[in-house]
Amino acid sequence: MKVIRSTAQLQKTMAQLRARRKSIGFVPTMGAFHEGHLSLVRKARRENGVVVVSLFVNPLQFGPHEDFKRYPRNFARDRRLLSGTKVDYLFIPNLRSFYLAGFQTFVEVTELSRGLCGKFRSGHFRGVATVVTKLFNVVRPHRAYFGAKDYQQVVLIRRMAKDLNFDIGIKILPTVRDQAGLALSSRNAYLSDQNRARALAIPYALAWIKKEVRTGKRNLSALRSEVLRRLHQSLDRVDYVEMVEPESLTPVKRIHGPFVVAVAGWVGKTRLIDNAIIRP
Amino acid sequence: MKVIRSTAQLQKTMAQLRARRKSIGFVPTMGAFHEGHLSLVRKARRENGVVVVSLFVNPLQFGPHEDFKRYPRNFARDRRLLSGTKVDYLFIPNLRSFYLAGFQTFVEVTELSRGLCGKFRSGHFRGVATVVTKLFNVVRPHRAYFGAKDYQQVVLIRRMAKDLNFDIGIKILPTVRDQAGLALSSRNAYLSDQNRARALAIPYALAWIKKEVRTGKRNLSALRSEVLRRLHQSLDRVDYVEMVEPESLTPVKRIHGPFVVAVAGWVGKTRLIDNAIIRP
Repeated sequence: MKVIRSTAQLQKTMAQLRARRKSIGFVPTMGAFHEGHLSLVRKARRENGVVVVSLFVNPLQFGPHEDFKRYPRNFARDRRLLSGTKVDYLFIPNLRSFYLAGFQTFVEVTELSRGLCGKFRSGHFRGVATVVTKLFNVVRPHRAYFGAKDYQQVVLIRRMAKDLNFDIGIKILPTVRDQAGLALSSRNAYLSDQNRARALAIPYALAWIKKEVRTGKRNLSALRSEVLRRLHQSLDRVDYVEMVEPESLTPVKRIHGPFVVAVAGWVGKTRLIDNAIIRP
Repeated sequence: MKVIRSTAQLQKTMAQLRARRKSIGFVPTMGAFHEGHLSLVRKARRENGVVVVSLFVNPLQFGPHEDFKRYPRNFARDRRLLSGTKVDYLFIPNLRSFYLAGFQTFVEVTELSRGLCGKFRSGHFRGVATVVTKLFNVVRPHRAYFGAKDYQQVVLIRRMAKDLNFDIGIKILPTVRDQAGLALSSRNAYLSDQNRARALAIPYALAWIKKEVRTGKRNLSALRSEVLRRLHQSLDRVDYVEMVEPESLTPVKRIHGPFVVAVAGWVGKTRLIDNAIIRP
C-alpha cells in the first residue's frame, strides 16, 4: 500500500493507471475505520484492478458547532486495519493543497439536501457533494463505494454523479452492524458502554417497525409515533423519524411500495443516524 | 466531422479516444459562430489530436427575462463555417438527455460570480459553471478553449477547474474584433447597422482609457467618469464600467499593475460586453 499525500501526484498516478487499462475502485472515507469501511474496501478489491482509499476529514462538511476538531483520527490504527485488505493507494490529502487558497467552488444538490439531516446540518451536503466531486476528479475511478448507513448521502451522490455526467459506477453496500445491531459509525467511538446500550434503541425501533409492516400494519402515522416514543425513552434528543421514498426522499403519505425509515438522534453529545428499507 | 447528439455516445467515444492516447481539444459554444469561435477551433486543431466542438444553447445560464428563446440558432450556417476547420466531432446535446428529469445539481463559484455581470444576471454564472462541469465530464478534454471577451466567465472557469481538480488545461484566446473594433459576439446579429455603429462607443472608450493610462494618467475615478460619459452618449443603458484586478475581479482602487476595464451596456434590446487588459 502506497501512501500519497500530494493531490497532483495521485491524479498523475491515476491517469497512468487508466492509460494502462487498469480498472480503479475508490473508497472515500474520513478514516477511523470500522468493519463498514472494510466491507467497502473488500468489495472494491474484488471488482477492480486497483483500489484507492482516501482518508480525509473534510472540514467543508462540518458545521461551525459540529465535531470537526474532535472527530476521531488514528492514522496508525487505520493503516494497520487496511494492511490486511490489499489496498494499492491510500490518499491522505494535505488540507492546504486540497483546498487551495481562494477556494470558492461548491457543488449543491438542491432538493435532496433539504430534508432529513439537511434540516439539521446546514451546509453539510454541500460539503459532501463538493469534496466527492473533487475526489472523483482526482481519482477518476471506474467505481466508487459508499455505505448505506448514510442513506441521504448515497442517494445524493448517485444523483450528483448522474446530473454532472460522472462516468463512475456508484456502488452502495449494506450497513454493517455490531452483534447487538448498532450501525457501525466512526462516531460510535464517542460512546461510553452505557450510552452505546442506550443507542440500541435506534436499531431496535427500526427492527420493530419493519416487523409491524411485515405483519400488515399500514397506519404510518401511528407507526411513526410509536417509533418516536421508543426512541425518546432512550435517547437524549431525536432530530427526526421520517418515512421517505427511496429515490426522491420525499415523505411517504401512505404505503404503496418500498420506503425508507430514516432516523437521527442524540445520545449525550453524539449524533447517530440509521435507516431501514422497508419492503411491505 | 461527425455530429453526435447522444451524451452517452459522445462520452463513450471520448473514452475510447483517450484510451488510444489521443489528446482532446474542446471548444464549448452556444453556436451562432463567428470568427472568435473559429479562432478557438483553429487553436484547438493545432494543439490536439482530436477536436470536439459542442453547440448547446444552455437554458440554465439565461435568466427568465433574457434572450434564451431568440438567441440566434442557425445550424446549417454553423456547420458550414466549421467545415473548413477540420473539427472531428460536433456535439449537439439533446436537451432532455443532457438535463435529465429531476436534474438538481449545480456548481457555484461564489465570489467571482458576485460582481460585474453577476450583479445583473442572477444565476447566469451558476448556469455556466454547471454546464461547463457537465461538458468537461462528458468530453474529458486535455485542453478547453475560451474567448477573453467573456472575461468574468473565463476567470471563473479557470478558478472552477482549479478548485474542483479538473485535469484540463484552460486556454484563453484574445477577443476577436471586426474591422471597426467591435468585439465579435453572437448577439451582434441582433444589431441594425445603426445600432452597430452606436455599439462602437464601447471599444472606442476602452481604446481611449488604454491610451490615457499609457500616457501617464492615473486618476481612476476621473478616467471611469469619462468612459461612462462617452458610453452614455451612444448607448441606451450602461450596466457597469469597472476597473478590476485581473484574477480576483475585485475593484482596483489605485493603479499598481495590470488591471482590467470591464464594460456592459445596452443598444436597444441588445446587451453587449467588452473588456480591455491595461498594462500601465
